Amino acid sequence: MKVNGEPLRPLRALPSRDAVEIIDQRELPHRLAMCRLESPAAVFTAIREMWLRGAPLIGAAAAYGLAMAVRSDASDAGLDHAAARMRQARPTAVNLGWALDRMQRVVHAVAPADRADRAWREADAIAEEDVEVNAAIGRHGLALLQAIAARREGGPVRVLTHCNAGWLATVDWGTATSPIYQAHAAGLPLHVWVDETRPRNQGASLTAWELGQAGVPHTLVADNAGGHLMQRGEVDIVVVGCDRVAANGDVCNKIGTYLKALAAHDNRVPFYVAMPTSSLDLALPGGDAIPIEERSAREVTHIGGRDGAGSVVEVQLAPDGTSAANPAFDVTPARLVSGLITERGIVAADNAALSQLMKGRR
Amino acid sequence: MKVNGEPLRPLRALPSRDAVEIIDQRELPHRLAMCRLESPAAVFTAIREMWLRGAPLIGAAAAYGLAMAVRSDASDAGLDHAAARMRQARPTAVNLGWALDRMQRVVHAVAPADRADRAWREADAIAEEDVEVNAAIGRHGLALLQAIAARREGGPVRVLTHCNAGWLATVDWGTATSPIYQAHAAGLPLHVWVDETRPRNQGASLTAWELGQAGVPHTLVADNAGGHLMQRGEVDIVVVGCDRVAANGDVCNKIGTYLKALAAHDNRVPFYVAMPTSSLDLALPGGDAIPIEERSAREVTHIGGRDGAGSVVEVQLAPDGTSAANPAFDVTPARLVSGLITERGIVAADNAALSQLMKGRR
Repeated sequence: MKVNGEPLRPLRALPSRDAVEIIDQRELPHRLAMCRLESPAAVFTAIREMWLRGAPLIGAAAAYGLAMAVRSDASDAGLDHAAARMRQARPTAVNLGWALDRMQRVVHAVAPADRADRAWREADAIAEEDVEVNAAIGRHGLALLQAIAARREGGPVRVLTHCNAGWLATVDWGTATSPIYQAHAAGLPLHVWVDETRPRNQGASLTAWELGQAGVPHTLVADNAGGHLMQRGEVDIVVVGCDRVAANGDVCNKIGTYLKALAAHDNRVPFYVAMPTSSLDLALPGGDAIPIEERSAREVTHIGGRDGAGSVVEVQLAPDGTSAANPAFDVTPARLVSGLITERGIVAADNAALSQLMKGRR
Repeated sequence: MKVNGEPLRPLRALPSRDAVEIIDQRELPHRLAMCRLESPAAVFTAIREMWLRGAPLIGAAAAYGLAMAVRSDASDAGLDHAAARMRQARPTAVNLGWALDRMQRVVHAVAPADRADRAWREADAIAEEDVEVNAAIGRHGLALLQAIAARREGGPVRVLTHCNAGWLATVDWGTATSPIYQAHAAGLPLHVWVDETRPRNQGASLTAWELGQAGVPHTLVADNAGGHLMQRGEVDIVVVGCDRVAANGDVCNKIGTYLKALAAHDNRVPFYVAMPTSSLDLALPGGDAIPIEERSAREVTHIGGRDGAGSVVEVQLAPDGTSAANPAFDVTPARLVSGLITERGIVAADNAALSQLMKGRR
């Protein structure tokens, strides 16, 4: 995607093959700040502290972080230790573990002297495949939006999305936004309802910024508003991303997704999840077993924003001493999911369809 | 209720009978600021700009505002003109119209020379009845909480509430909080999940502050979290207030209430609405016809909070130029409501129960 007319990715390997440059997403939407990560520890911190976030992007970043570790210690023990450490960065998205598993498998298979090169090439491959996967998700999702457009007779297709499953959450295109960007490029009239997505406001900070850069018409709403919009017939389809999908099709995604899925179901609005197969965890029978990250109370009691003088400051919202709980994800039961938009096509959120989808691929 | 050990109400008529003193709720939770309203125009502004809010409190404030108008013009035309103007302050809560109807009926019935006195007395009566009504709601709701406590075997009764239907939303006690305060006084172990309630954060600013003052254990959560908490079995009952209830039991309340009702229904968590009968609008057959206030986009794109230096400042959350929609209320269909806690007892949210409840009372 482009920013101010220039192609940009939220993560880019440097030609020196020893570091990556990322967008520091904590600064958006107020400032576009780039940041260089030159060690596994820096990558770990960037993932844990959410300088970058989004399941696919976390996977690619972790792969590069592991490749950096292999440069300094290419032994079996060093590789496994670095992978185990990186795996702790965040608990919920399965792409992190998926990318690290893949890196370990590939790197273990070559002699230590070749491992640094092999690891970097595999991280490159993971990143480039992410771009291709998301482009494919976009093509499959585009068909859904085109079908709705045909019924809307010239009116815009009104999409609601939650959090940021945009290009900032991936290496490019995004997952949930990929159909949107492709539809926009194809001239389909669109309007996106952007959930602000408290407490970290990835919708207000990132999705609104992305869509603005791309020229896609959109309107920001409080997370509370989505049910009302659906009741009033102002949403044609909900499309969200995911952090992990269980074998039965249960979808773990940003906290609040479940509430939107309930509202979509209650109002017969199609509810689709954009899912690269790297987010599928067939080892988990159902969503109940997915570990849900509990983040800092301060993300709820305080918020950052730009003051009148243009400085980004943090302000306190709640009374002094208020305790807060901050589960970062929830699980949407498969029964509420109309379908999963994968790079291999749209499939039902159930055991049979998902095991069929992955047959012979693992 | 008490603040720092001293009894306080969010609205108090002055002994001079020509003005009221209110808590300027825009300053909470950072500062407890009192404000004097000495004219109908000042009351109108205070309601419209939400210096005070909450359906019952709006009703009482409007009554005093009309009484102030009658002091300067006690003619039939003056009375009706002032009432028509005050009615425009906010569209959704029916208590505003209910209180003004009652004031007009009572004041028209006496000679112009007696009207100023009569109007003030009626406003006093509306305010005092609100206190009694809410106390009665508390007694009926307490029984619900006691029944849950009996099953919880010593564990706290875990209540989730949305927005502020607390004493700050009424003349005293609150509606949804009245059972909570009475249960707390009775020694019942309680824990309240407080939805922050974007975009105006009445939960984080007001409910958390109230509960803190009263010593009721509570935890603040983003609005997105409630569904997850219910899925995990961490909510025993949802209790919310209402701005208007239709004849069929559909409940109009703060935006986002509908999403919580869906989650409660999906997880078999009882969902109760505290409803003074002054919030019941039997003239409306269903919730679809309730006018939904659309408030300023700036409430979504910006937020106020206390900075590190202790000043309350407004910060911008969204990218420059982001458009936002801000419906302030939604409608929860009666089918999702376990019951309405009224001053006359707990009733089903349906036509038969509500018309029976009001028989001979209007």
